[in-house]
Amino acid sequence: MAVATVKYLQTPTSPAWIEQAIANLDTILLDHSHCERKAAGVALNLMCRYPSNTQLVYQLTAIAREELEHFQQVNNILERRNIPLAPLPAPPYAAGLKAQVRRNEPGRLLDSLLISGLIEARSHERLGLLGENVRDRELAAFYRSLMASEARHYGTYWVLATTYFPREEVTERLEELATVESELLATLHPQPRIHA
Amino acid sequence: MAVATVKYLQTPTSPAWIEQAIANLDTILLDHSHCERKAAGVALNLMCRYPSNTQLVYQLTAIAREELEHFQQVNNILERRNIPLAPLPAPPYAAGLKAQVRRNEPGRLLDSLLISGLIEARSHERLGLLGENVRDRELAAFYRSLMASEARHYGTYWVLATTYFPREEVTERLEELATVESELLATLHPQPRIHA
Repeated sequence: MAVATVKYLQTPTSPAWIEQAIANLDTILLDHSHCERKAAGVALNLMCRYPSNTQLVYQLTAIAREELEHFQQVNNILERRNIPLAPLPAPPYAAGLKAQVRRNEPGRLLDSLLISGLIEARSHERLGLLGENVRDRELAAFYRSLMASEARHYGTYWVLATTYFPREEVTERLEELATVESELLATLHPQPRIHA
Repeated sequence: MAVATVKYLQTPTSPAWIEQAIANLDTILLDHSHCERKAAGVALNLMCRYPSNTQLVYQLTAIAREELEHFQQVNNILERRNIPLAPLPAPPYAAGLKAQVRRNEPGRLLDSLLISGLIEARSHERLGLLGENVRDRELAAFYRSLMASEARHYGTYWVLATTYFPREEVTERLEELATVESELLATLHPQPRIHA
C-alpha cells in the first residue's frame, strides 16, 4: 500500500504536520469528521452530475456509503471524548485543488475523479502516519482500520478515470494535479487539519 | 403506519396516479433511483448546514446511509431489467416545496425538516400503493420492504423538528406545508414520477 501511495503523491507529508496533528488531536478528530462527510458529499455530487455513467454511479455509491459509516465512527469517538460537533474553517487545500478542475467536459470529469483520488491517497498516507504515531491505542487502531478503505477509494477513482479516459491522458493529467497537490501542502497551515 | 401517513398528508394519492405509474413501471423505477439518491443528498446537505446540531447529524447520517442502500437496491433491479441509468427531468413537486422554505433561520431549519418529512410520508404512501397494486411479485415485495424505512424516516424528521422547535409551532407549520404538498399533487403530472 505504501508503494501505491508514493506512486500517487509527489511528496510525502512533512514531519512538521504529524507533530502539529499529534499536539492537536481533538481538532484533528473534529476535522476528520468533516472530511468523511465531505467525501460522501463529493461522491454523491459526482453521481448526480453523471447519472448515466453506470460504473461511476455503482462505485461511488459504495464509496459514499463507506464514508458515511466512517463519519458515524468518528462522531462516536468525538462523543466518547466529549468533543462537541462544531463547524471548522476549511484549509485552502480542497478549494486549491477544485480550482484546477477544467470547466468543460470531458476534462471536468477526468479532473474531478483524479482530484478525489489524490485526496483519498493523501488521507491514506496521513491516517497511516496517525496510526503509527498516535500514542492513544484506541485512536491508533481506528486510524489503521481506515487506511485500507482510503487505499481502496483512491484505487477506485483511478480505475474510474481509466474507464472513461485513455490511460496515457490519465497519467499525464494525474502528474500535473499531483504537483499542485504537493505544492498546496508545501507550507504547513497554521490551523491543524487532516489536509493542511 | 397508514394512520400516521394520513395524519401527515392532507389528501391521499389519486387512483389516476397509481394507474399511470403501473402503466410506466420502467420510468417509475428509474425515477425511484433518482429519488433515493436525492434523498441522501438532502440529508447530507442538512448535516453540512447544521454541523453543530448533534441529534440532526446523528439521525440524518442513518437516513443518508439507508437511502444509499435503497439507491443501490433500485439500481440492481434496473440492471436486472436492462433499464439503463439515465437522467430524468424532475417533476415540479420538490422545487414547489423548496420554494416554501423561509430564507432566514430558524424558520429555514424547521421548514427544511418538515418538507423532508412530508416527502418521506408521500413516498411511504406511494410505495405502499405500488406494493399493493404492482402485479410483478419481486417488485411488489421490494416496494413493501421499503415502506417501513420511509415511515421511520418521516418519523425521524418529525422528531427532529420537535427537538429544535416547540411542538405547537411544528404542528402549525406542518399543516401549512402539508396543504401546499397536496396542492402540488392535485393535478397529475403528464410524466410518470414517484412525486408527481
